[in-house]
Amino acid sequence: MLAAVQAQPVEMARVEAAHGRVLRQPVHADRDFPPFARVMMDGYALRAADLHLSRRFHIAGSAPAGKPRAVLPQEVAACLEVMTGAPLPIGVDVIVPVEETTRVGGMVRVSDEFEAVPDRFIHHAGRDAKDGDLLLKAGIRLGSREIGVAASCGAAVLEVSRLPRIVVIPTGDELVAVDAVPEPHQIRQSNGHAIRAALGREGYSAELAVPLGDDARIDELRDILETNDWLVFTGAISKGARDFLPGLLAQLGCACLFHGVAQRPGKPAGFWLGPQGQAIMALPGNPVSALTGLHAFVLPALAVASGLPQPTPRRVIPASPLNALPDMTLHLPVCLDETGRVHAAPTGNSGDFIGLLRSDGFATLPPRGAIQAAFPFTPWR
Amino acid sequence: MLAAVQAQPVEMARVEAAHGRVLRQPVHADRDFPPFARVMMDGYALRAADLHLSRRFHIAGSAPAGKPRAVLPQEVAACLEVMTGAPLPIGVDVIVPVEETTRVGGMVRVSDEFEAVPDRFIHHAGRDAKDGDLLLKAGIRLGSREIGVAASCGAAVLEVSRLPRIVVIPTGDELVAVDAVPEPHQIRQSNGHAIRAALGREGYSAELAVPLGDDARIDELRDILETNDWLVFTGAISKGARDFLPGLLAQLGCACLFHGVAQRPGKPAGFWLGPQGQAIMALPGNPVSALTGLHAFVLPALAVASGLPQPTPRRVIPASPLNALPDMTLHLPVCLDETGRVHAAPTGNSGDFIGLLRSDGFATLPPRGAIQAAFPFTPWR
Repeated sequence: MLAAVQAQPVEMARVEAAHGRVLRQPVHADRDFPPFARVMMDGYALRAADLHLSRRFHIAGSAPAGKPRAVLPQEVAACLEVMTGAPLPIGVDVIVPVEETTRVGGMVRVSDEFEAVPDRFIHHAGRDAKDGDLLLKAGIRLGSREIGVAASCGAAVLEVSRLPRIVVIPTGDELVAVDAVPEPHQIRQSNGHAIRAALGREGYSAELAVPLGDDARIDELRDILETNDWLVFTGAISKGARDFLPGLLAQLGCACLFHGVAQRPGKPAGFWLGPQGQAIMALPGNPVSALTGLHAFVLPALAVASGLPQPTPRRVIPASPLNALPDMTLHLPVCLDETGRVHAAPTGNSGDFIGLLRSDGFATLPPRGAIQAAFPFTPWR
Repeated sequence: MLAAVQAQPVEMARVEAAHGRVLRQPVHADRDFPPFARVMMDGYALRAADLHLSRRFHIAGSAPAGKPRAVLPQEVAACLEVMTGAPLPIGVDVIVPVEETTRVGGMVRVSDEFEAVPDRFIHHAGRDAKDGDLLLKAGIRLGSREIGVAASCGAAVLEVSRLPRIVVIPTGDELVAVDAVPEPHQIRQSNGHAIRAALGREGYSAELAVPLGDDARIDELRDILETNDWLVFTGAISKGARDFLPGLLAQLGCACLFHGVAQRPGKPAGFWLGPQGQAIMALPGNPVSALTGLHAFVLPALAVASGLPQPTPRRVIPASPLNALPDMTLHLPVCLDETGRVHAAPTGNSGDFIGLLRSDGFATLPPRGAIQAAFPFTPWR
């Protein structure tokens, strides 16, 4: 599935709007960083040699941030008032922090305890990066640091992955809208909302389609298929008489990559590719299976389609042995303790969606016989 | 600071748009969950007692999801075809999964290996929650599970915390826009972009104000103060001659809660409350200090203002001893290894913003003498 999904095309985004997006270009330093030797403390700039002659200095001027480099006069025991962020004045090799001084009128006295340490409080030009250095690589998600670095380099517009057009399509005649009062045999549509929320928390927005009834027609699906990059179905995927989805997808020219997974929950899950390479994930209608499958299959594949490397889930150690299954992978709801170890969550059967509230995520346990000390852990979004 | 910040007022949000928001009301079950005894497998529903008489059953009808409860006829060896999610038919106590059967016309044969286990594949009404049970408490962030549960209960509109109006205000005459080509003594404004990005990744949106110059006037600030809940400044907060911010805030009637923190980086940081209770965080202009302070002070306080409990940072164990400072708290950039332990990141001095790219977050080390085995760890947003 990770190999089959299409990479999202590139689009341009302003740096102000690019956080959370996946960068698709390198960003290089367009100057040295810092671009000039930078004063790191508020205080007074002077010549170290003069400190052997005097502790009283004449304030010959000031060197604020945002002004061209100042020059320290040649006279003995002259100093310049300097501000954090200012270019280091010419002729200066020591910054005395303001806390080490007493000022009286146009004179400043340096405390007897102050010892000049070469380069202290001076951030030399090019120390962090040189003009032309690669600072950001393609294929990373843009967080606060990356956005700050891009802004520093003047990368006002960035190449990023276009967000996929995703639609979530619940199925089932038993579903009614959240606003409706269900008949005793009906339930409110909740899978679509939960899946949209998980996608939203990962930075994707998704449409929620009107639930497909058991009499769904091919025309309804064709329009949806043509206008989306990703389709996430819930239900109609198992072996029951009304599980119409595999047949409908075949009629639409979609190719099945897999249908049925040796896992619990979510055995009936399947994945298809549409005629234009659309990614089509079919998750079971059981809400626990649907949400688990979204986390286990869809979120990692969306990350890869967005240009990120394959996510490596955090690995966790069980606080006490966890029971695997003999013949299939088990996605087991677990709770994290303060030390970061996990124990099985007190949930009910595989249909207990409410019980998932008592877990932090799920551990993925391979079939018995392949048990390892640490397991991949996927937090709920 | 956490005690002083004002709680955000409550507003209403549709469940479709509420993910990531903080819930401010309880959500109770409005019916039993499941609301009816629910079939958990596609297959055939029958009476266990009949299995002692026959393995061949007459298919008397079907019980799909979304239809009222069906009734199994009284005749011996009758069964109903059932779909996952259907209400359990009346008169039935066993579900035989379709995999355990062979169908020929109107008859189905149950495999000889199948053993009826009471209640297996039946999800009884009220098993997960009873009508009236408290399912979601006020003061939680709405993730996918919570949104799914709220939708199931018909909570179409939810009380949530209004998002704070936040403005980020860089200061400094040395700053130019990202689009501009800086003079040698100028730098591009990046703090505001980095801070907005971090806030954005936490679900908040923030305005970015035009940088205040060193000649900032009180009128410029008064308008900003009156239209925002939170103000985050960078720069103009230290002891230099041009650090105008504390004076300006005093003139505007803002009350200082603290100014100066025994920490590195970020010693000059301060916090003020505005006349209408606005939260005003002043962070240093140094980009490392600014971003660290945003994570250490602003994000936790925004969480509390949004109605969440005080965040407890994840605690991490150092892979080898970390050097604390003698007299102040150290926010040390660190890298996480695969086992979840941390080591000091290979960054430069406290002005090396680019070096932060080589870290995963920061560990907060108390002054030497109070060293513990595990330290709070804050990941970069």
